[in-house]
Amino acid sequence: MNFVDSKASIEDLKRIVKEFCDDRDWDQYHNAKDLAIGIITESSELLEHFRFKSEKEIEEMFKDARKKSEISEEMADVFYFLLRLAQKYDIDLSSELNKKIAHNEKKYPIEKSRGSNKKYTELL
Amino acid sequence: MNFVDSKASIEDLKRIVKEFCDDRDWDQYHNAKDLAIGIITESSELLEHFRFKSEKEIEEMFKDARKKSEISEEMADVFYFLLRLAQKYDIDLSSELNKKIAHNEKKYPIEKSRGSNKKYTELL
Amino acid sequence: MNFVDSKASIEDLKRIVKEFCDDRDWDQYHNAKDLAIGIITESSELLEHFRFKSEKEIEEMFKDARKKSEISEEMADVFYFLLRLAQKYDIDLSSELNKKIAHNEKKYPIEKSRGSNKKYTELL
Amino acid sequence: MNFVDSKASIEDLKRIVKEFCDDRDWDQYHNAKDLAIGIITESSELLEHFRFKSEKEIEEMFKDARKKSEISEEMADVFYFLLRLAQKYDIDLSSELNKKIAHNEKKYPIEKSRGSNKKYTELL
Repeated sequence: MNFVDSKASIEDLKRIVKEFCDDRDWDQYHNAKDLAIGIITESSELLEHFRFKSEKEIEEMFKDARKKSEISEEMADVFYFLLRLAQKYDIDLSSELNKKIAHNEKKYPIEKSRGSNKKYTELL
Repeated sequence: MNFVDSKASIEDLKRIVKEFCDDRDWDQYHNAKDLAIGIITESSELLEHFRFKSEKEIEEMFKDARKKSEISEEMADVFYFLLRLAQKYDIDLSSELNKKIAHNEKKYPIEKSRGSNKKYTELL
Repeated sequence: MNFVDSKASIEDLKRIVKEFCDDRDWDQYHNAKDLAIGIITESSELLEHFRFKSEKEIEEMFKDARKKSEISEEMADVFYFLLRLAQKYDIDLSSELNKKIAHNEKKYPIEKSRGSNKKYTELL
Repeated sequence: MNFVDSKASIEDLKRIVKEFCDDRDWDQYHNAKDLAIGIITESSELLEHFRFKSEKEIEEMFKDARKKSEISEEMADVFYFLLRLAQKYDIDLSSELNKKIAHNEKKYPIEKSRGSNKKYTELL
């Protein structure tokens, strides 16, 4: 199996996460609350890279291979816990994403939201 | 295109996210810091469902179709921002996840971590 | 000045935080967005201590002087950024807390919320 | 009792939080993990106000009385859970803050950190 975004499906990725956890017998610890804590704590490590940094400094980070790799690792940690939660509770992330996009197309109609950073509750 | 976990590739999912954002001309707002804020704030909405709830109450939530759907929506929101960040900065989530798993197989060797909730720094 | 909870006011604490930051000329970096990022990233380091730990294991942590001290340090980090944000934008935390408690007394009337973990939106 | 930052001690604030919770018999739900979840989820609601907003837009928010009040309320929510965690586990926030500042004075010596947004690990 070639694990690249052009080929891997979410099901492929769920499978390698499940195998990793099954090998360690971690079902007993991986309840939804702790997995959601996993997601948020790893999201925080991602965000921490950008704390007190200007937009220009952050753009430079992504041009630095080592720094970009560190940031990508934090994203993989978030993804790992998200996949694990989806796998354990039988949630289809692809169809949920697709539904969400369809839903947001209504909340953020193009003619009102184009070029705007307003929240849907603020759109006139 | 059938957006289900067994068929969609990560690239397919990145594409629908990109189209949604391009249609709204949101590149100007979607810098890495704000996208990382997007990830953590949506992670928090996911976690909030479980606040002060017991493990038993949480397991019941996943048996309730409406509640499970609400939780799944929060997961889609996290996923949306994660995909958008990866798409904008050209990060291959599948290969990052695969590398991370390989890395964690060393940090958490099966014989030491099996059945244990210890952090790798606590494993003897 | 004796910095203990029985004597120190929020104003005293804001003052030492302000002096620390002024000495380093950090006003230029301490905008509201980055200070709020400070609060959430430190909150996450606090929460991470409890990830995958049972209630019993966590209660043990607070009986271990070194572990309790580590946890208390994370709380100080959250408090530092909260005070700094309040000090910079002239927000009176004591009166805000007092108002919030008064507000929550209405949202959570004793007769309905006593012994219950329901959110106010779920209270009949 | 006058609940303003110039007069209230942290102990006074802990006391009103404790009374509010005791009246509702919430000790049973207020374990450290869920209180830390309380802190981070409220931190996230604070941060969400600033998502996708420019520094200029955020400065305007603080000049708008209603918006400033909304932001201050989120800060009160964070503070409430921080005080509750400290009160329940007998942690003196003032002395912890004071120790942290003393510690950070060493990690961030004025001559090296003045005018710099570098993390202590990046200071030469």
